[in-house]
Amino acid sequence: MIIILKDNAQEKQIDELVEWVSGFGVKTNLVNGVHQRIIGLIGDTTRIDVESVQAKDIVEQVKRVQEPYKNANRRFHPDDTVIEVRGRKLGGGNLNVIAGPCSVECEDQILQTAIAVKEAGATMLRGGAFKPRTSPYAFQGLGKEGINLLIKAREITGLPIVTEIMDLSDLDLFADVDIVQVGARNMQNFTLLKELGNSDKPVLLKRGLSSTLQELLMSAEYIMAGGNSKVILCERGIRTFEPKTRNTLDLSAVPLLKHHSHLPVVIDPSHATGIAKLVEPMSLAAVASGCDALEIEVHNDPKNAWSDGAQSLTPEQFKETMRKIKAMSEFCGKPLDI
Amino acid sequence: MIIILKDNAQEKQIDELVEWVSGFGVKTNLVNGVHQRIIGLIGDTTRIDVESVQAKDIVEQVKRVQEPYKNANRRFHPDDTVIEVRGRKLGGGNLNVIAGPCSVECEDQILQTAIAVKEAGATMLRGGAFKPRTSPYAFQGLGKEGINLLIKAREITGLPIVTEIMDLSDLDLFADVDIVQVGARNMQNFTLLKELGNSDKPVLLKRGLSSTLQELLMSAEYIMAGGNSKVILCERGIRTFEPKTRNTLDLSAVPLLKHHSHLPVVIDPSHATGIAKLVEPMSLAAVASGCDALEIEVHNDPKNAWSDGAQSLTPEQFKETMRKIKAMSEFCGKPLDI
Amino acid sequence: MIIILKDNAQEKQIDELVEWVSGFGVKTNLVNGVHQRIIGLIGDTTRIDVESVQAKDIVEQVKRVQEPYKNANRRFHPDDTVIEVRGRKLGGGNLNVIAGPCSVECEDQILQTAIAVKEAGATMLRGGAFKPRTSPYAFQGLGKEGINLLIKAREITGLPIVTEIMDLSDLDLFADVDIVQVGARNMQNFTLLKELGNSDKPVLLKRGLSSTLQELLMSAEYIMAGGNSKVILCERGIRTFEPKTRNTLDLSAVPLLKHHSHLPVVIDPSHATGIAKLVEPMSLAAVASGCDALEIEVHNDPKNAWSDGAQSLTPEQFKETMRKIKAMSEFCGKPLDI
Amino acid sequence: MIIILKDNAQEKQIDELVEWVSGFGVKTNLVNGVHQRIIGLIGDTTRIDVESVQAKDIVEQVKRVQEPYKNANRRFHPDDTVIEVRGRKLGGGNLNVIAGPCSVECEDQILQTAIAVKEAGATMLRGGAFKPRTSPYAFQGLGKEGINLLIKAREITGLPIVTEIMDLSDLDLFADVDIVQVGARNMQNFTLLKELGNSDKPVLLKRGLSSTLQELLMSAEYIMAGGNSKVILCERGIRTFEPKTRNTLDLSAVPLLKHHSHLPVVIDPSHATGIAKLVEPMSLAAVASGCDALEIEVHNDPKNAWSDGAQSLTPEQFKETMRKIKAMSEFCGKPLDI
Repeated sequence: MIIILKDNAQEKQIDELVEWVSGFGVKTNLVNGVHQRIIGLIGDTTRIDVESVQAKDIVEQVKRVQEPYKNANRRFHPDDTVIEVRGRKLGGGNLNVIAGPCSVECEDQILQTAIAVKEAGATMLRGGAFKPRTSPYAFQGLGKEGINLLIKAREITGLPIVTEIMDLSDLDLFADVDIVQVGARNMQNFTLLKELGNSDKPVLLKRGLSSTLQELLMSAEYIMAGGNSKVILCERGIRTFEPKTRNTLDLSAVPLLKHHSHLPVVIDPSHATGIAKLVEPMSLAAVASGCDALEIEVHNDPKNAWSDGAQSLTPEQFKETMRKIKAMSEFCGKPLDI
Repeated sequence: MIIILKDNAQEKQIDELVEWVSGFGVKTNLVNGVHQRIIGLIGDTTRIDVESVQAKDIVEQVKRVQEPYKNANRRFHPDDTVIEVRGRKLGGGNLNVIAGPCSVECEDQILQTAIAVKEAGATMLRGGAFKPRTSPYAFQGLGKEGINLLIKAREITGLPIVTEIMDLSDLDLFADVDIVQVGARNMQNFTLLKELGNSDKPVLLKRGLSSTLQELLMSAEYIMAGGNSKVILCERGIRTFEPKTRNTLDLSAVPLLKHHSHLPVVIDPSHATGIAKLVEPMSLAAVASGCDALEIEVHNDPKNAWSDGAQSLTPEQFKETMRKIKAMSEFCGKPLDI
Repeated sequence: MIIILKDNAQEKQIDELVEWVSGFGVKTNLVNGVHQRIIGLIGDTTRIDVESVQAKDIVEQVKRVQEPYKNANRRFHPDDTVIEVRGRKLGGGNLNVIAGPCSVECEDQILQTAIAVKEAGATMLRGGAFKPRTSPYAFQGLGKEGINLLIKAREITGLPIVTEIMDLSDLDLFADVDIVQVGARNMQNFTLLKELGNSDKPVLLKRGLSSTLQELLMSAEYIMAGGNSKVILCERGIRTFEPKTRNTLDLSAVPLLKHHSHLPVVIDPSHATGIAKLVEPMSLAAVASGCDALEIEVHNDPKNAWSDGAQSLTPEQFKETMRKIKAMSEFCGKPLDI
Repeated sequence: MIIILKDNAQEKQIDELVEWVSGFGVKTNLVNGVHQRIIGLIGDTTRIDVESVQAKDIVEQVKRVQEPYKNANRRFHPDDTVIEVRGRKLGGGNLNVIAGPCSVECEDQILQTAIAVKEAGATMLRGGAFKPRTSPYAFQGLGKEGINLLIKAREITGLPIVTEIMDLSDLDLFADVDIVQVGARNMQNFTLLKELGNSDKPVLLKRGLSSTLQELLMSAEYIMAGGNSKVILCERGIRTFEPKTRNTLDLSAVPLLKHHSHLPVVIDPSHATGIAKLVEPMSLAAVASGCDALEIEVHNDPKNAWSDGAQSLTPEQFKETMRKIKAMSEFCGKPLDI
């Protein structure tokens, strides 16, 4: 951490500041410039709050040099984290494809879709039981019944299931879920993150609509600080001024997250674009960029879907897309985890 | 709602679509263009999900004409909503100033600050008991003890208290709080919003970091749909590419929200800018733009604050700023609610 | 400037880097941390290109401490710059209001509008002769004839004229214009900026749609580096994800630009919002925040305007808005420059 | 185009509006809703300015259904445009790789780099002679001499040359350049676009930092409206709040631009990310998404480059990246144009 002092900082004030930061166990080094003086902090600054430093009278600017996260940081954990889910491996040299409908609507719909995605080569099943919807008048999900239907679909297909939690009061209902998803709108629901840190469930953590990659890693750190190291990072599009797509897929997140962290990285091209016909090219691009998994919305009848139909593939479209994803994953040396 | 059809839409498909939307109780009007055909929907389209329409095979685009919110909509409630809180009125022809520290740290700190802001003319007291912090290693708030200290401060100063809820499992602790704040990160925590809709507590709802004004109004609608009409809207800065400020204050939100809604509008210049010296000019600008209240961070000793010190005013700075706010509010014909 | 080195930086490489930066006349100070080593540069770093430093093999990050602009920097020019234009003063303790139509359309239109804004209290006249339009099929401005009509309007009203230049090949046509405006889309047309730096015309420089304040100041620096110190900075809204307004007015630009620079600051509420009814509240807010001038679009017949009618005030609306601006400017101790 | 009327629109006003729009040769269709009335326009609305409609007293909203561009629109030109440049084809079933330094610095540098990229498989040579730099104190390019050195490099390697124009006064100097590049900052320099529309030079048009895809297509339309149909569209990253990358690469631009337009699409991963080590994964992803060309910065000695060294590949890195691009392009059925 580097602290740039104001022109008028007094010796006494500087001494006080140095004493205060020393209390965190770091060493300091004072550099006297022509217009400015700078204090460099040497040691582990993770527990020093930038804002608290910024608040000091004599501080002009504070610049962090070290990343403020440790558990999620590749610097301290050079090897890729591999998360095992019912025999499948997320994060190793394989590719996973998590497919299924936006919402679980009824038994027929989820079973038909599950069987179709399994046949097409998907390795995990997604489906929403609790749905975060912008409008209170829109379908809000089947809740507990939805989770039971997902479990039934798992029994039939053998696919591990991924579904979103919206509030920690529902946590008990997720006991038999394989991967708990935290949606973009909950990425900074810190109470929820902490509670998930106390469990040993794999957590698929989605980047917030306007969150930086560092904030995503800090939210992963919340979970990991509690002892749960099974965190999967997911880029699902960020909000920009471009109106043609629902969000803007930030694909450079893949190499960047893999550079800064050892955690697996998933791309969700369905939410990132919001347009079914963009899912295939963006999926192929994501695999080419080195992601560990894709999360793709598939519905047995998108035009009558209760949510997100416009971005859902039909089983036929998904089959064709999977054929290309499979080929691309083999070409890239990261074959499907089958 | 206007539905633009694809070039290749067949009569039979159009008939099916017309029949489906008619099921929501609206009438339709088909317009045949040269390149495109358009269906206009006539009636209340609030319950028709744009995404579901978008998902139909033959639909090219959907454009909403009516706003998707009713309870929060000024079109159906022309008069300003005025929310009474311990005798004070939020939303009428008066201005309220909600002041206090980012976090409640200890009895001395909150009492000293509360007395200081009361003397300077603040009309309500803010203070965080539960703190959403980006880092798991930062101070997370005193929790229940923080709320008790706020209540003590209210007993001494008479100021109604405003404090943030982070999770609905804590709701019982807010029984004696005057205004429950929902922070920017929870603006789309729909489970929490619904639960607050079942209470009769005034709710101060902050705009998300990258939320549109319509999304803010839809979140207000969630609370109001449950029967709680005491919602206060708050603009606290949105995320942009500008690095000099913590966020970018979108002050045009004031006249726009007041045009589209009847709910009171609060501006938080402290979080919007993140810089103490910008709080005064932005407060004066906010009053000039017609806001109903300001929420300002004040700390008895900002340079030793446990959070957000850089944007907190000292009691002396706040006293001077209040002097100008008071004069400006009288000049604008919306005097302080004292 | 602070240079953070990679873990594996060799002594020899560090020596080479130190030698290279020393060539720019700065001193260096090496700080050895636990995980990282840092070089602090002491002296004038304006001419050191951050990107060139970043490109060095052993450099992990570069952080600038000093601002990279000197002429526009208040640190080196503590007093406010006041620009005289035909006896009026932009940037002192007065407020100027620059009003007029988006485009000059014909003699009747510009003369009628000019007389109306003069009567209402405007202190300068704006009007576009060269119009940057998104569509090649839209009206592109009257060009030279437009400038001649503005000059005629000046003769009648005495108001100094402000009009936009789109290309330096037109520079000769601006010989008799009082203030040359550089539009948002040309803020980084560096060839044009350099040429204007060689003239002694006052330049009203608009912030680009997604430019940072530092980039705006660097563009001002381009003009000033050529010897022309008569630069006026203008905030006219930045692009965000909010669709209700044409752009988002960043009003904190006023106190920030005035803190970092000595140049006058203008707010354009018409382009910033794109909505006529928002112009008045945003104008009053801008004056309250401390701006030196407003630029407001007024048209004698907005509903038949050839461009930007939706954000233009009628003469009657402008008269009423001016009445309030005048009162607000006096209340704020920065009266209209009349 | 759909015009939504205000509640209080009078019959007489509606008649006037209908008469006015009919003057553009379109038919109208009035739909009477419960709360609102709507006018649908039928026919070619390209020449109707949305803003002018929006300005009418009785208009609440205007929504465009048709795209406002014709020449660049795939709807009217279903086949891919293929642009021939010295025997190479941009836009057909082949992939082109345009490689070279950010700036031309001297003869040795450009010739060494050109020979290296040619050997590695690049199909065109890029190099900046006129450089748009944020700081007036940074290297501004060699100008005419730079173009002469590029021509010399073309003589030696046979590679067509691509270089950026910054001002139309320099147009004569580009007579012997193969592709004229218009940079992101000039995407809406309409005077320059019009002039290029009068030439028959291929133009590589870069998307502005915060431009929408429709604005990019409208700028292409400017050039094409003048008669020059040789336009190449380039996505080079947009500005967001993410600080880790210089810009955010919007790769969904590839399938979207190819859906809406018949023009070739180039991806520039160097400017989009600003980080050399991200160039390879983003290049492979871009090829997988279906782009027609890549533009990659390569420098014979990046650590001593005069500009953009941090994002430039060394010849060795480029050789390795090209090996993978070549394989990926063949895998995707769009082999390198050699």
